[in-house]
Amino acid sequence: MLCAIMTDIIEIAPPATTDRPPRWLARRDGALYGESVALSDIARTVGTPFYCYSASTLRQAYAELSEAIAPLGARVCFAVKANGNLSVLKEFAQLGCGMDIVSGGELTRALAAGVPASRIIFSGVGKTRAEIRQALAAGLHQINVESPAELEAVASVACEMGLRAPVALRVNPDVDAMTHAKITTARKDSKFGIAIDDIPALYAAASSRAELHMVGLAVHIGSQILDLSPFRDAWTVMAELVRDLRSRGLSVERLDLGGGLGIGDDVCDGPDLAEYAAIIKQTVAGLGCALNVEPGRWLVGRAGALVTEVLYVKDGAGVSIVVLDAAMNDLMRPALYDARHPALTVHDPRADADARPSLLVGPICESSDVFGKYRTLGQIQSGDLVVFDNAGAYGASMSSTYNSRDMVPEVLIDGEVFRLIRRRVDISDVLAHEQAGPWQNTTQAG
Amino acid sequence: MLCAIMTDIIEIAPPATTDRPPRWLARRDGALYGESVALSDIARTVGTPFYCYSASTLRQAYAELSEAIAPLGARVCFAVKANGNLSVLKEFAQLGCGMDIVSGGELTRALAAGVPASRIIFSGVGKTRAEIRQALAAGLHQINVESPAELEAVASVACEMGLRAPVALRVNPDVDAMTHAKITTARKDSKFGIAIDDIPALYAAASSRAELHMVGLAVHIGSQILDLSPFRDAWTVMAELVRDLRSRGLSVERLDLGGGLGIGDDVCDGPDLAEYAAIIKQTVAGLGCALNVEPGRWLVGRAGALVTEVLYVKDGAGVSIVVLDAAMNDLMRPALYDARHPALTVHDPRADADARPSLLVGPICESSDVFGKYRTLGQIQSGDLVVFDNAGAYGASMSSTYNSRDMVPEVLIDGEVFRLIRRRVDISDVLAHEQAGPWQNTTQAG
Repeated sequence: MLCAIMTDIIEIAPPATTDRPPRWLARRDGALYGESVALSDIARTVGTPFYCYSASTLRQAYAELSEAIAPLGARVCFAVKANGNLSVLKEFAQLGCGMDIVSGGELTRALAAGVPASRIIFSGVGKTRAEIRQALAAGLHQINVESPAELEAVASVACEMGLRAPVALRVNPDVDAMTHAKITTARKDSKFGIAIDDIPALYAAASSRAELHMVGLAVHIGSQILDLSPFRDAWTVMAELVRDLRSRGLSVERLDLGGGLGIGDDVCDGPDLAEYAAIIKQTVAGLGCALNVEPGRWLVGRAGALVTEVLYVKDGAGVSIVVLDAAMNDLMRPALYDARHPALTVHDPRADADARPSLLVGPICESSDVFGKYRTLGQIQSGDLVVFDNAGAYGASMSSTYNSRDMVPEVLIDGEVFRLIRRRVDISDVLAHEQAGPWQNTTQAG
Repeated sequence: MLCAIMTDIIEIAPPATTDRPPRWLARRDGALYGESVALSDIARTVGTPFYCYSASTLRQAYAELSEAIAPLGARVCFAVKANGNLSVLKEFAQLGCGMDIVSGGELTRALAAGVPASRIIFSGVGKTRAEIRQALAAGLHQINVESPAELEAVASVACEMGLRAPVALRVNPDVDAMTHAKITTARKDSKFGIAIDDIPALYAAASSRAELHMVGLAVHIGSQILDLSPFRDAWTVMAELVRDLRSRGLSVERLDLGGGLGIGDDVCDGPDLAEYAAIIKQTVAGLGCALNVEPGRWLVGRAGALVTEVLYVKDGAGVSIVVLDAAMNDLMRPALYDARHPALTVHDPRADADARPSLLVGPICESSDVFGKYRTLGQIQSGDLVVFDNAGAYGASMSSTYNSRDMVPEVLIDGEVFRLIRRRVDISDVLAHEQAGPWQNTTQAG
């Protein structure tokens, strides 16, 4: 918990220690490489800024997690919202990873990446009837329902389609994940899930309906959780609830444990997978339920970086203001959550007699377009490349074209080769959507 | 100032008073109309959620502002970042309005909307050399330069092109606009502008260079300013600076007064235009400079609304949680700035025996995807349409496809007719950009 606060609030990171090297970014002959590709080569090819991801790191993260929890009967569903790039999804799909989706768009992505519908779980508080229909038509593994009203919508659509909808109820266990207020989801006053006291009656009533196949329960308590004790609290509550439902003669085959597993950075170690697995074992593994977890950030966060070029260096009050060509529209987390991403230079850091910290900022006309102060970058010049690490999750997926800026390219590196996996989306692409249609009047519309 | 704080922090708005009716949204026969078009008709035609704008309100806002300041020799340049939709820009262009742009993309937009280059000013802390080249080639009215390093880049590009660049220096006057920390831009420690003490030497040196035409000064102190006294402070400082430069024999033909003029809402009146004009008159109108102002929100904020459908209503702790089909990706201001938009129902409000406030939330899996609590909406049902007013600025322009959601349609209303001015951008449009390119190795890239 202390770590979670520290990484957001402290302004100046200590030098990165050698025991926490970025896994796939490494210096060689005075330059920073992603796996075996010089980042400056990618910059020359696709232009800056760009996101790049390490395929081997994606695969390694999936392998570590799935191996840790597979003996407990638990499977991994990747939370697509963290990074929905089609090529990233394909990497996971090829490994047998399932997907946790929250929209019809994410369903389209997952299916396009080759994920079987039987490995896809549909979460979220506001599924439209069209999305429910799309999910049932595809034969999705499970729909996690978050309110009685949504349950009625699922039942109604299933009836219309003559299908039986596989449904889990998402429980709000009233547990505080103790991270940033904007990413905590399981307190009693939040919009997420169904109050735990309401579950037994709702589950029992739903179990008697022919159009619903009540398969179990789901829980998700927040995001970027580093202290694992809230997981223990929530899953202990869930285990009691499963026993309660079964004592009423109800069938509970599956338990969806949600995501939220955090990642470390240059200041703070991430959580220990063995401890995570031990908590699953101690709380829910003995229930005989099919278990799944839904990590997003843990699988992709450390596997991605945002590479940006220094445009200008200007004097500030006690700082050197470094204007980058990346901005808050490209990486929203600092502006939205006060998040801090470790920063590295692509060149070997230069000596800096001045030794003022660098305030890294973007070119957008907003005061919130600031990435933070960094002491360890050395002297910075126009034309330098700067890398924000740990940017694989909630980076490109939250990006926009604010200030009519391009959507930046995304690149996947695998060993000695790389490929463009999203091309630059520029103003001509965007303006193509803004051709005005014919004037209509109310009569025509009605 | 009190107003600015109140609108962000208070959770429950009082009923809208009749002396502050939304200018273009009005009830007729039990339904809400935008100008003379029933919003429910537009919803049936384009689907929800959607943005809609009132052409007459855009025109009226421009007329009011330009008439108030034209006698002072001041012109209006619309800040494109507030709402860059091509059809919105065309409305302003047809009235003779200039544009304030902050990127090459916005330059492309302004030119595509028919704005003459001679009415376009290029602001922003991080113009790339390519953007500077694009601006000079187009013959832009003025480039506002924010650092000595950027001045060198403009000079260098102008030299390469054999042109003389029309340059104003953006001054940081060290004045606090006293609004939200994320939208205050003129304090000494901000990334914006050049410290006022450094201006005379820089302006003098630049004035002697053949590739630079030093036309004047620019200032911009923040956003959504309701108490006008910071304008008086900043412009008084600027007037002194103009006199100082002239006393050194330097020519200062133009003064760019920036934007930041706020708008009122259902709680709080907006600033008084007559007072705004009086401050211009008292501080800078006597200098003999060509003046311009760069409002964004003031011209478009009140002219736009986001219309959304209620998906589900669920019980919360003391509130009725209303899950909408609009989310933070569509309207980012509540999540990013704690902003509050007035909310209205399209139907006449129903009696509500329960009388719990409605917590309006979006379907995105983030706790920050919340629009706020509202007491005045009456009883709400699935299928109802809810309107967020004052959403014409920094609404669609900041939107994204986070959670793989569509970019929502934008509609322009003019009297009894309306037209689609941005079509829905769906997952198939987005996936078209994600076709993976060929694998390349470093040698090929180098």
